[in-house]
Amino acid sequence: MIVILKSNPNPNQLESLKNWIHGKGINIHESTGDSHQILGLVGDTSKLDMDLISALDIVEDVKRVQEPYKNANRKFHPEDTIVNVLNKTKIGGKNLTLIAGPCSVETEKQMIEVAHAVKAAGATVLRGGAFKPRTSPYAFQGLGKEGLRLLMLASRESGLPIVTEIMEISQLPLFDDVDIIQVGARNMQNFNLLKELGSQKKPILLKRGMSATYEEWLMSAEYLMSEGCEDVILCERGIRTFETYTRNTLDLAAIPVLKKLSHFPVVIDPSHATGKADLVEPLAMAAVAAGADGLMIEVHNDPAHALCDGKQSITPEVFAKIAKKTLSLKAYLNSEEA
Amino acid sequence: MIVILKSNPNPNQLESLKNWIHGKGINIHESTGDSHQILGLVGDTSKLDMDLISALDIVEDVKRVQEPYKNANRKFHPEDTIVNVLNKTKIGGKNLTLIAGPCSVETEKQMIEVAHAVKAAGATVLRGGAFKPRTSPYAFQGLGKEGLRLLMLASRESGLPIVTEIMEISQLPLFDDVDIIQVGARNMQNFNLLKELGSQKKPILLKRGMSATYEEWLMSAEYLMSEGCEDVILCERGIRTFETYTRNTLDLAAIPVLKKLSHFPVVIDPSHATGKADLVEPLAMAAVAAGADGLMIEVHNDPAHALCDGKQSITPEVFAKIAKKTLSLKAYLNSEEA
Amino acid sequence: MIVILKSNPNPNQLESLKNWIHGKGINIHESTGDSHQILGLVGDTSKLDMDLISALDIVEDVKRVQEPYKNANRKFHPEDTIVNVLNKTKIGGKNLTLIAGPCSVETEKQMIEVAHAVKAAGATVLRGGAFKPRTSPYAFQGLGKEGLRLLMLASRESGLPIVTEIMEISQLPLFDDVDIIQVGARNMQNFNLLKELGSQKKPILLKRGMSATYEEWLMSAEYLMSEGCEDVILCERGIRTFETYTRNTLDLAAIPVLKKLSHFPVVIDPSHATGKADLVEPLAMAAVAAGADGLMIEVHNDPAHALCDGKQSITPEVFAKIAKKTLSLKAYLNSEEA
Amino acid sequence: MIVILKSNPNPNQLESLKNWIHGKGINIHESTGDSHQILGLVGDTSKLDMDLISALDIVEDVKRVQEPYKNANRKFHPEDTIVNVLNKTKIGGKNLTLIAGPCSVETEKQMIEVAHAVKAAGATVLRGGAFKPRTSPYAFQGLGKEGLRLLMLASRESGLPIVTEIMEISQLPLFDDVDIIQVGARNMQNFNLLKELGSQKKPILLKRGMSATYEEWLMSAEYLMSEGCEDVILCERGIRTFETYTRNTLDLAAIPVLKKLSHFPVVIDPSHATGKADLVEPLAMAAVAAGADGLMIEVHNDPAHALCDGKQSITPEVFAKIAKKTLSLKAYLNSEEA
Repeated sequence: MIVILKSNPNPNQLESLKNWIHGKGINIHESTGDSHQILGLVGDTSKLDMDLISALDIVEDVKRVQEPYKNANRKFHPEDTIVNVLNKTKIGGKNLTLIAGPCSVETEKQMIEVAHAVKAAGATVLRGGAFKPRTSPYAFQGLGKEGLRLLMLASRESGLPIVTEIMEISQLPLFDDVDIIQVGARNMQNFNLLKELGSQKKPILLKRGMSATYEEWLMSAEYLMSEGCEDVILCERGIRTFETYTRNTLDLAAIPVLKKLSHFPVVIDPSHATGKADLVEPLAMAAVAAGADGLMIEVHNDPAHALCDGKQSITPEVFAKIAKKTLSLKAYLNSEEA
Repeated sequence: MIVILKSNPNPNQLESLKNWIHGKGINIHESTGDSHQILGLVGDTSKLDMDLISALDIVEDVKRVQEPYKNANRKFHPEDTIVNVLNKTKIGGKNLTLIAGPCSVETEKQMIEVAHAVKAAGATVLRGGAFKPRTSPYAFQGLGKEGLRLLMLASRESGLPIVTEIMEISQLPLFDDVDIIQVGARNMQNFNLLKELGSQKKPILLKRGMSATYEEWLMSAEYLMSEGCEDVILCERGIRTFETYTRNTLDLAAIPVLKKLSHFPVVIDPSHATGKADLVEPLAMAAVAAGADGLMIEVHNDPAHALCDGKQSITPEVFAKIAKKTLSLKAYLNSEEA
Repeated sequence: MIVILKSNPNPNQLESLKNWIHGKGINIHESTGDSHQILGLVGDTSKLDMDLISALDIVEDVKRVQEPYKNANRKFHPEDTIVNVLNKTKIGGKNLTLIAGPCSVETEKQMIEVAHAVKAAGATVLRGGAFKPRTSPYAFQGLGKEGLRLLMLASRESGLPIVTEIMEISQLPLFDDVDIIQVGARNMQNFNLLKELGSQKKPILLKRGMSATYEEWLMSAEYLMSEGCEDVILCERGIRTFETYTRNTLDLAAIPVLKKLSHFPVVIDPSHATGKADLVEPLAMAAVAAGADGLMIEVHNDPAHALCDGKQSITPEVFAKIAKKTLSLKAYLNSEEA
Repeated sequence: MIVILKSNPNPNQLESLKNWIHGKGINIHESTGDSHQILGLVGDTSKLDMDLISALDIVEDVKRVQEPYKNANRKFHPEDTIVNVLNKTKIGGKNLTLIAGPCSVETEKQMIEVAHAVKAAGATVLRGGAFKPRTSPYAFQGLGKEGLRLLMLASRESGLPIVTEIMEISQLPLFDDVDIIQVGARNMQNFNLLKELGSQKKPILLKRGMSATYEEWLMSAEYLMSEGCEDVILCERGIRTFETYTRNTLDLAAIPVLKKLSHFPVVIDPSHATGKADLVEPLAMAAVAAGADGLMIEVHNDPAHALCDGKQSITPEVFAKIAKKTLSLKAYLNSEEA
């Protein structure tokens, strides 16, 4: 951490700042320039409060040198995290995991049909929403508990593990048989929920907040890890920008960046990112080529009558085509690298 | 609602769309242009799912004519909402409500000193955080229950009603003696929390999410109102943009826009919006001139040692100066209007 | 175009609006709903001024149904534009065009070395900046005329056509021997420059403005086409968002979206988009998989001493590897489609 | 400037970096931490190329301590710049300058009527566009040379100095009798234009680019000043964000921030910022309260028939009311400060 002092700092205040820093077991290297005096703080500064130092009268600015996350940091955890889901599928490594299913769970027939169809096409995880975060209180809010029951039924029928979104802590007991718990974009900084989930023994799929930076996202993963969770999966689903043609702007640079800064598998959700069914295939292909570990795709047996987000859903037939193309692409890329 | 069809729509699909719309009790006016055919939907379309219609093969686009919120809508609720807090202070109308106090509750001495100081300066509501949403799991997370106790102690000592942030539903029983419950920016779309809070009999101060549009914000107010809450206070605290010199970009157009679209009082938080103590005064003045009903300002008796967000805190002395200037400005503006 | 009227519009004003619209040769279809009256405008509305109508007292809102661009519109120009550069290379169709070279032209030795190297690796167009738009007046501004001379020398030596950026109209005479003229992001809405360039007989590579929407970008292409230019190449180079880890956020959805809305070839510049050399390869691969027609990559024989933007430059050796991987990927994708 | 090295930097490369820095007359202070080694560069680093250093293999990051602008910097130019326009009006200091007139110059009658009306209401500068940057090639592009003639006619008739926008260098000879030259948002980084204008002897009103940071904006002012221009007026006109209800988001924090970082007068344009006539008054009031030196407001004698941007124009009557309120507010604020 580097502390840049204002010109002519009050000597008593400077002395007391230095003493306080030394008291934290941190050494100080000083540089005096023409216009600024600088303190270089040497030691474990990850738990030092930048804002506190910035607030001092004699301080002009404080800059971090080290990342503020430790457990999530590739530097301290050089190997890739590979998430083993029930010994059925692995997310990370050389795999491309296809996670597919409807936005909302609606009926038993729908779930079972879709589960069989996506499995046949190559998906290894089934998705489906039982609790749905909807902008409007008048929109369909999901089937809730009954939705979870249908999801698990489809899981048993198809043999696919499931991922589904939790919206608040009190729902946790209902998630006992859920294989991967999803934290949605709107809850990425619901810190209480993160702490609670971090102490579970389940993989967590953590979606990026609509306007979250990479660092904030990794700090949310750090919340999970600081409570003991090892199996975090990051999911990019588009960020909010000025462009309104697509629902969000899919940020595929997130894939190589997150793989450099951290050790987690990265999954891409092209359906939510764009909100348009015809953009799913090209962006799914792009995600695989950029190194994504998985894709999360909305599939509905009757998209035009889907109860939510129908616009971005594709049919099982279209999904089968996308699955084939993306899995072939992954195989091609793996063979090129070998 | 206007449905724009693709060119040469399949006649059977068009027929079945029309039947479905009629089945909802909605009339259809058709226009056929050179390049597009348009259906004008006439009736109560507020509960019609735009996404569902957009998803149809024959549909190119759907545009709303009516706002998707009803209770929050000025059109259906023309009078200003004025929130009466314990018969002690009113938020809205001709008043300028000053809400002041530290970011985090730290000690009894701090809270009582600050409470007396801000009351003497003209504040009528005391703020302070007991549960703090912090980006890092290693940062100070607030005193929790003990913080609430100190806050209520300061409230009794000073006679000021209090506002403090709730972070999850399970904390609700602890908020029995809190006068105004704050929903933070990160929870603006925590819909379960909103539904739960909407059925309480307390005013709710709803902060704008970091990247929430006016419409999304009003939809969150609609969640509160749809459960029975009448006393919603909207609080603008800056939105996330590309500019990084200030922590966020304070959007003061929100004041006249929200007063036009809805009927709620609008409060401005210049402290969080900018993250810089020296910007609080000019932006507080600007907010009052734009018609704000209140200001929410961080005040700390020792900003340089504040446990969180010290950078944006000001001393009681500086607050007294800002309070004097903003209250005088409000009096001047009221007298000009009279 | 759809005009939504305010409730109870003044009948005289409404009459005069209708007469004015009819006077433009446009028909009106009216729908009267519970809360709003709507005018559907039928005919060629592309030259009707939306803002003018919006400004009327009786009008609540105006919504477009048709895109405001004609020449650039896929609907009126269904075939792909394929840009033939001097019969040496084609941009568009099944090709992947690699455009490579240094950010700035510096020395004869540099240009000739790089030109030979990138040609050997598979590039078919040479890039290099002679006039450089730099944020600071104190930063290197390019070699200017001498830079163009060196660029053409390298072109003759290598046989590669060249693309280079023009910064203002008065430079045009110097661009006589330039094969493709580049309009930079900061000039995307320099409308005078666009009009002037549109009447040249040269292909134009039009970069997306830092905060330009797809529609604004296509309107700038429309400026070029409205003056007679047929050979427009669109180049996505990242948009400005809140994320600061990368210089910009590369928006790869632009590829399928622009190919749907318009008929132009789309080239991706991963170097400027990210500002980081190690992100160039994964994003180049992603661009190809999403259907890009070309890649524009900064290559420098000595990146650490490049006079501008060295951070994002890669060596000829690294470029050779990326060229091989992306061209193989394109061949693989073409063979899969066949 | 602070250079953060990667762990275990190559000693030869480090040695050569240090020699290169010393060769520029800059001293180096070294700090070695647990995880990073840091070089503090002491001396005049304003002309050192950050990107060049960042590009080196052994460098992890480079951070600036000093601002990259000198002439524009309050630190090196502590007094306020007050722009004297023809001894008729001063922009800056204790004044509130009202700049008013139509978006586009249309007819002689319009210009003369508006000029007299806004002068009577208290405006001291007349605005009007002769060359208009329009997104669409089919929209009205301004009257050009004839527009300038009408503007000067109205100036002579009313005695008001004029400000009008230049769009490219070749138009400069036509601007001989223009009192203040405006650089529009789209040209804020048209560096050739800035350099040319900087060597004129006229005040320049420099609008903020749609997605320009404060630093980029000040660097553009630095371009003007580095060519000799002393009289720069900064004009905030809204930035592009995700919110689409208003055309742009007006950033009023720009006023105190720019007055702290630089010495220029700051003018606010609430008309373009919001694109809505009813938001002009509240945001004009807010701007004055935040310390703006001037307001730029679109006024049209017949807004509903304005040829461009009618939506945001107000009538002379409404302008008179806003002028009275804002000038009274300024007088009130000045008297409070005295």
